[in-house]
Amino acid sequence: KIDFKRFRETMEASSEIGRVKDTGLYRLALSDKDKEMRDLFRKWMEEAGLEVRIDDVGTMYGRRAGKEDLPPVLIGSHLDTQPYGGRYDGVIGVLMALEAIRTMNDYNIETRRPIEIVNFTNEEGARFEPPMMASGLLAGEFTKEFVHSRKDAEGLEFGEELGRIGYRGTEENRIKDIHSFVEVHIEQGPRLEKEGRDIGIVRGIQGVSWFEVTVQGKSNHAGSTPMHLRKDPMMAAARLISDLEELALEESVLMTIGKISASPGAVNVIPETVNFSIDVRSEDDEERNGFIRLLEERVGAIASLKNVDIDVDHTWTSPVTHFNSDVLEVISSKSESLGYSTLDIVSGAGHDARYINDIAPTAMIFAPSVGGISHDIAELTLDAYLEKCGTLLFEVVRELADR
Amino acid sequence: KIDFKRFRETMEASSEIGRVKDTGLYRLALSDKDKEMRDLFRKWMEEAGLEVRIDDVGTMYGRRAGKEDLPPVLIGSHLDTQPYGGRYDGVIGVLMALEAIRTMNDYNIETRRPIEIVNFTNEEGARFEPPMMASGLLAGEFTKEFVHSRKDAEGLEFGEELGRIGYRGTEENRIKDIHSFVEVHIEQGPRLEKEGRDIGIVRGIQGVSWFEVTVQGKSNHAGSTPMHLRKDPMMAAARLISDLEELALEESVLMTIGKISASPGAVNVIPETVNFSIDVRSEDDEERNGFIRLLEERVGAIASLKNVDIDVDHTWTSPVTHFNSDVLEVISSKSESLGYSTLDIVSGAGHDARYINDIAPTAMIFAPSVGGISHDIAELTLDAYLEKCGTLLFEVVRELADR
Ligand SMILES: NC(=O)NCCC(=O)O
Ligand SMILES: NC(=O)NCCC(=O)O
Repeated sequence: KIDFKRFRETMEASSEIGRVKDTGLYRLALSDKDKEMRDLFRKWMEEAGLEVRIDDVGTMYGRRAGKEDLPPVLIGSHLDTQPYGGRYDGVIGVLMALEAIRTMNDYNIETRRPIEIVNFTNEEGARFEPPMMASGLLAGEFTKEFVHSRKDAEGLEFGEELGRIGYRGTEENRIKDIHSFVEVHIEQGPRLEKEGRDIGIVRGIQGVSWFEVTVQGKSNHAGSTPMHLRKDPMMAAARLISDLEELALEESVLMTIGKISASPGAVNVIPETVNFSIDVRSEDDEERNGFIRLLEERVGAIASLKNVDIDVDHTWTSPVTHFNSDVLEVISSKSESLGYSTLDIVSGAGHDARYINDIAPTAMIFAPSVGGISHDIAELTLDAYLEKCGTLLFEVVRELADR
Repeated sequence: KIDFKRFRETMEASSEIGRVKDTGLYRLALSDKDKEMRDLFRKWMEEAGLEVRIDDVGTMYGRRAGKEDLPPVLIGSHLDTQPYGGRYDGVIGVLMALEAIRTMNDYNIETRRPIEIVNFTNEEGARFEPPMMASGLLAGEFTKEFVHSRKDAEGLEFGEELGRIGYRGTEENRIKDIHSFVEVHIEQGPRLEKEGRDIGIVRGIQGVSWFEVTVQGKSNHAGSTPMHLRKDPMMAAARLISDLEELALEESVLMTIGKISASPGAVNVIPETVNFSIDVRSEDDEERNGFIRLLEERVGAIASLKNVDIDVDHTWTSPVTHFNSDVLEVISSKSESLGYSTLDIVSGAGHDARYINDIAPTAMIFAPSVGGISHDIAELTLDAYLEKCGTLLFEVVRELADR
């Protein structure tokens, strides 16, 4: 039913904006490339006859009226990417939502409820931490002031960058009553491919904790300071990271150190401080919290062993999410009638659906990721699966919008 | 004999240029602050009646004529600093040389040989690696093209920055025949203070090796990639650094990791690459080379254990240096006649004297560092020691210049 060729062309246009090598994207939130993508997406929405709104954190909505003025069905995802991310992460959820609308227009389908498509600002959290701030704002998890005051690595503020690219809308444009929300996304993991299934029916999302660790030692000369007189924050950090990896393996949580830096940062200077991030995830909140307790113990042990100060700042937490069973049921039954093979899955990655789930019935649909690769330019989802996902979304949204 | 008050005032003027907090300096080579310091130093040299020359890598010389046109005695050090370095490192060697000239002028002392004072460009190697490039050029260790093409962390080129600050002189201005070179410097280590001596008589300099390590893994999503399917360069780097620390302690070499970074550098992305530096030093070249062999073995072991590629680039080596016994003898006997307590010492830090020693009889004099701290804003040398060092330099240069 959907026009897959049209969807593919729309994907190609997106894949050129911020392109890296043949297959990657570098389209950080509120960058010039993000603006270029937003302008194009707005044009597409207008061409599809949607009424466009921008809210106070830059989230873009396009509304297709229903026969009745009821709370709308919301579909969509995000158009920002990681530095050196792929073309599919987030993007397919937004452009399949657009394709669903276009298909409805093709067939003059009217629905009982309005349908809104959405592009959430800064889902990735790559430029402004934490991730999913725009959906978190809607759910009351973050305040507008908090979001606007976030700074990127260069010290540029979210609020100012939003104004600079011309996407500072109004608080009244935020979506309020949502009938239901469906987000299509790539799996970003290896399970669907390994099990050879078409579609992932996403039951929930892992819990996550983020930390910023500061190891404070004493900077001094690399050539003239005896090893035993050093307070070397780098040696403490290396040992701590190694120990935490072992702990994470024992405790079956996922742990990632994605950022690290040493200051002042010269070859012949023992650093004064080393900073790094920790991302911890688990499908079980008890397990994640248990790991965090062990982490804190280990930090204390390494600090005294290595004679340094270690400060651990807990910057973000998101407990395990369970999606809505009614929406999941619609996805299951539509998959079945379309003859698609499915797998129940728990998402490893966070998504805007995580926060919208707090304020409206929500669920997600996953497409398989080749080799499970994501947050990398090698990210890929095959056309056959994209087409199935798009068709399924179309059927699901039709069903929900007539409820 | 020297005018310590005048020396102190000269130090204070230097300490204002690039000042950080109360006691630090941030005066990277060829920065605007370095230019400001150079302009002032040039003015001081001209006021002292010296003939100023700038060579093709920006090294500044000030010549005081001798009764005969013989190869000159060279004295001096460097005026650039580390990021967040101290006020004494390098600076005292240059400004005591200036003070020695001023004192000779006060007393109308004529010497047989000319005396030249020198400010070597980029001794620290903090902005442009490796350190001591300007003296290395004189010794034939580096070519002019090599030096000019070095880039800082922002990609700015040495040669262009030299032109920008107006200190690109000529090759013919390089000093050629040197009778002898004496460099005064702070110890940058704890030994003189611990043993309660006035003066360090520097017999030589440790050998040094620098490495740039690149650990190449596979970037992927922090939330959806199982731990055992990762090729995580950060976990490999942490383990390698921890292991190397243990090895360094066993092998009695000094090892420092001063710089580290992860790319792409987002909290929720397993890095694709981790880069770090290694600085290895020893008073024994055999020991240093033995450690390097063990390091290479360990790199191989961790690469296969952690399923990553590790590339180790050996960027700079400087073997152990032995200074000239005649110049050392002059320093010893002058110390003795002045009644100063001395300690024979091997320098942990590299100095321009290391390269000049390859082309002329060379030695160094150290002043004690409080707490052994250097390459940090807390660096300090007490006035009582500075005065002794200055007086000793004056006596030594007088003696050498009449030989
Ligand atoms: N889907 C996705 O990559 N979201 C970013 C938030 C996270 O780190 O899970
Ligand atoms: N003196 C000094 O800090 N020199 C820098 C070169 C080195 O790293 O030893």
